Amino acid sequence: MNRPLITFTSDFGLQDWFVGVVHGTIHTICPDALITDLAHQVSPGNIRRAAFIIEAAAPDFPEGTLHLAVVDPGVGTERRALAVRAHGQLFIGPDNGLLEHAFADPHAEVRHLTETKLFRHPVSRTFHGRDVFAPVTAHLACGEPFEQVGPVVDDPVRLPHAVTNPMDGGVEGQVMFVDRFGNALTNVREADLAAAFRGVDESDLQITVVARTIEGVARSYGDHEVGTLVALMGSSGRLEIAMVGGDVALRFGIGEGDPVTIRPR
Amino acid sequence: MNRPLITFTSDFGLQDWFVGVVHGTIHTICPDALITDLAHQVSPGNIRRAAFIIEAAAPDFPEGTLHLAVVDPGVGTERRALAVRAHGQLFIGPDNGLLEHAFADPHAEVRHLTETKLFRHPVSRTFHGRDVFAPVTAHLACGEPFEQVGPVVDDPVRLPHAVTNPMDGGVEGQVMFVDRFGNALTNVREADLAAAFRGVDESDLQITVVARTIEGVARSYGDHEVGTLVALMGSSGRLEIAMVGGDVALRFGIGEGDPVTIRPR
Amino acid sequence: MNRPLITFTSDFGLQDWFVGVVHGTIHTICPDALITDLAHQVSPGNIRRAAFIIEAAAPDFPEGTLHLAVVDPGVGTERRALAVRAHGQLFIGPDNGLLEHAFADPHAEVRHLTETKLFRHPVSRTFHGRDVFAPVTAHLACGEPFEQVGPVVDDPVRLPHAVTNPMDGGVEGQVMFVDRFGNALTNVREADLAAAFRGVDESDLQITVVARTIEGVARSYGDHEVGTLVALMGSSGRLEIAMVGGDVALRFGIGEGDPVTIRPR
Repeated sequence: MNRPLITFTSDFGLQDWFVGVVHGTIHTICPDALITDLAHQVSPGNIRRAAFIIEAAAPDFPEGTLHLAVVDPGVGTERRALAVRAHGQLFIGPDNGLLEHAFADPHAEVRHLTETKLFRHPVSRTFHGRDVFAPVTAHLACGEPFEQVGPVVDDPVRLPHAVTNPMDGGVEGQVMFVDRFGNALTNVREADLAAAFRGVDESDLQITVVARTIEGVARSYGDHEVGTLVALMGSSGRLEIAMVGGDVALRFGIGEGDPVTIRPR
Repeated sequence: MNRPLITFTSDFGLQDWFVGVVHGTIHTICPDALITDLAHQVSPGNIRRAAFIIEAAAPDFPEGTLHLAVVDPGVGTERRALAVRAHGQLFIGPDNGLLEHAFADPHAEVRHLTETKLFRHPVSRTFHGRDVFAPVTAHLACGEPFEQVGPVVDDPVRLPHAVTNPMDGGVEGQVMFVDRFGNALTNVREADLAAAFRGVDESDLQITVVARTIEGVARSYGDHEVGTLVALMGSSGRLEIAMVGGDVALRFGIGEGDPVTIRPR
Repeated sequence: MNRPLITFTSDFGLQDWFVGVVHGTIHTICPDALITDLAHQVSPGNIRRAAFIIEAAAPDFPEGTLHLAVVDPGVGTERRALAVRAHGQLFIGPDNGLLEHAFADPHAEVRHLTETKLFRHPVSRTFHGRDVFAPVTAHLACGEPFEQVGPVVDDPVRLPHAVTNPMDGGVEGQVMFVDRFGNALTNVREADLAAAFRGVDESDLQITVVARTIEGVARSYGDHEVGTLVALMGSSGRLEIAMVGGDVALRFGIGEGDPVTIRPR
């Protein structure tokens, strides 16, 4: 028997009890579920950052994983609660763009959580993580059919997607996320480079970010001297800008939203 | 079979290994227990804050849940170690007021942990979370009868309880906790309002806090414009003062201990 | 049946998704494993601090526990990946000194992780926590024989070990770690004192640290007045310097690397 695997991402932080209560709610309904916290220190209401975390992490989890996501500034308003079947996994969260990664699957099936018997009662005005999203996730994990959560939705709120753009002789993308180590993760994927520069070796590319130029895509952080600015393919399949043994954000002022261009040398 | 559910609250923080060792101790004795961390970033020795977290979170957990709590500045002195059966759950921690929520149950049964065969040996002078509280919790979770932990105690240390006071034509309470989102949770409960203002609609109440007046209890954060100060019934059944899209502590200087009064308009 | 117990220590922090992905990788391969996080907020690349955490915490876990440790500034270079059988437990991590506690066992058996069928594929250039260390740990937890991970290594990278030195009539050690409560943990163990001061009562020792002298080893934090500087045997069997109700680092400027001397009074 496979135990259901649930990831949990939120902006709840770790100083209060909100994350623990969501765990407890899931365990109560579906004791066999394994719950994995992805990130809870997303700044309050930062939907874009949490959406990126889900996009980066979800492909690392096996088929059938459930991804519970709660960054929900509109809690208590008429914003819908959703569950999405996409990429062979399930995604549960508010209808505010947070689940953008799921919508990117052209076969995504989106449903509106209206089946209130799957909720925790009474439903509070302010904590749908506990009262709506966690119990529905737990019921799905323990076998509730996806089709039972509510009707199909065909107009979920989308997040303006930061796509890469072809430009004359190159690709333009942007920095999406600076991680704990001070590495700048971009939205440029291995496939973007393969499509734009067919037959060009990665070491023959030139990467420009905030007026700095990097020659070639490195094999690893450790290949170069400490202090060197390098570009390399990161663990989530995106081009990363990194400083060997340092922090690109602190040392080079590189941050989220900065444009990145890649051309052949 | 129900797997036992244990919550864990402490002031251990997350930068050292203390939380992990407590988990390991519990898992070793009772591998089927599910452990849910409530909060570990309570400032060192802040019994009152941890007691509030337990009071707010415990009712969200099912009957039979065990709540392990370790904020224990008196470790190694003669302060007693306790287990309490109350509200259909068990509470385990030092005798310093931390378990006040349990004592509030008039049927609470309090016991002194003297059965040393349930401890981890040798018992250190400084880490009873690992050596006393966690192993006793784990044994209770795995079936040790509550009566076996030690003799009944009838004089546990109580925390001065912040009760709400009736005042002429109204109710006076105070801010108990400012959460991560900058919402100020008070000790005024739904039942306090129902008792004081029988027949008065919540929208006809006036809430005053630090010289600011709020008209009516809102339905949710999202009902008002960003920047508005609102009062609403929070997810733990307490009146909360919140700024829509903002932080009441930062923007209005509202903090723990501030008086809150509620009257009809 | 005993469920395998895995501890996990890293410098991944908690704001990104890296810890969660490692959990997911382990759960996918070995769903019955119990994973206990020891510490993830070690500053990036601080091998020495993480090694101390493992040394302090591992003895608190039962025989057969697996300790996964990833502080890995050399990821992607030729540094080896190791598994070590020592102290009746297993230790998995990079060959950079992080597993020093395991090497301290004279019977330690060290192996180089070369059996790539135990890895996650494709192996990224930058995240061997996910692609090498976690999957090998999970396979070992679920029954893969230790001998199958790769060949024996007899020259692992060692961490300069901070040993205590006998000095005329006393013992000299140093502060190794300041914990969350501001207690300074030293490398002086109970056995060092017993060997150096046979027959001398702990209360008759004099401890000197940064020009401050402490008379006698205390029984607990709570025995003395708030503000007093005390020395006592801590929960991991090391002499600790503590300020009752305070923080020795903040108040007395005591920090990692400071010398500590112990003599009879």
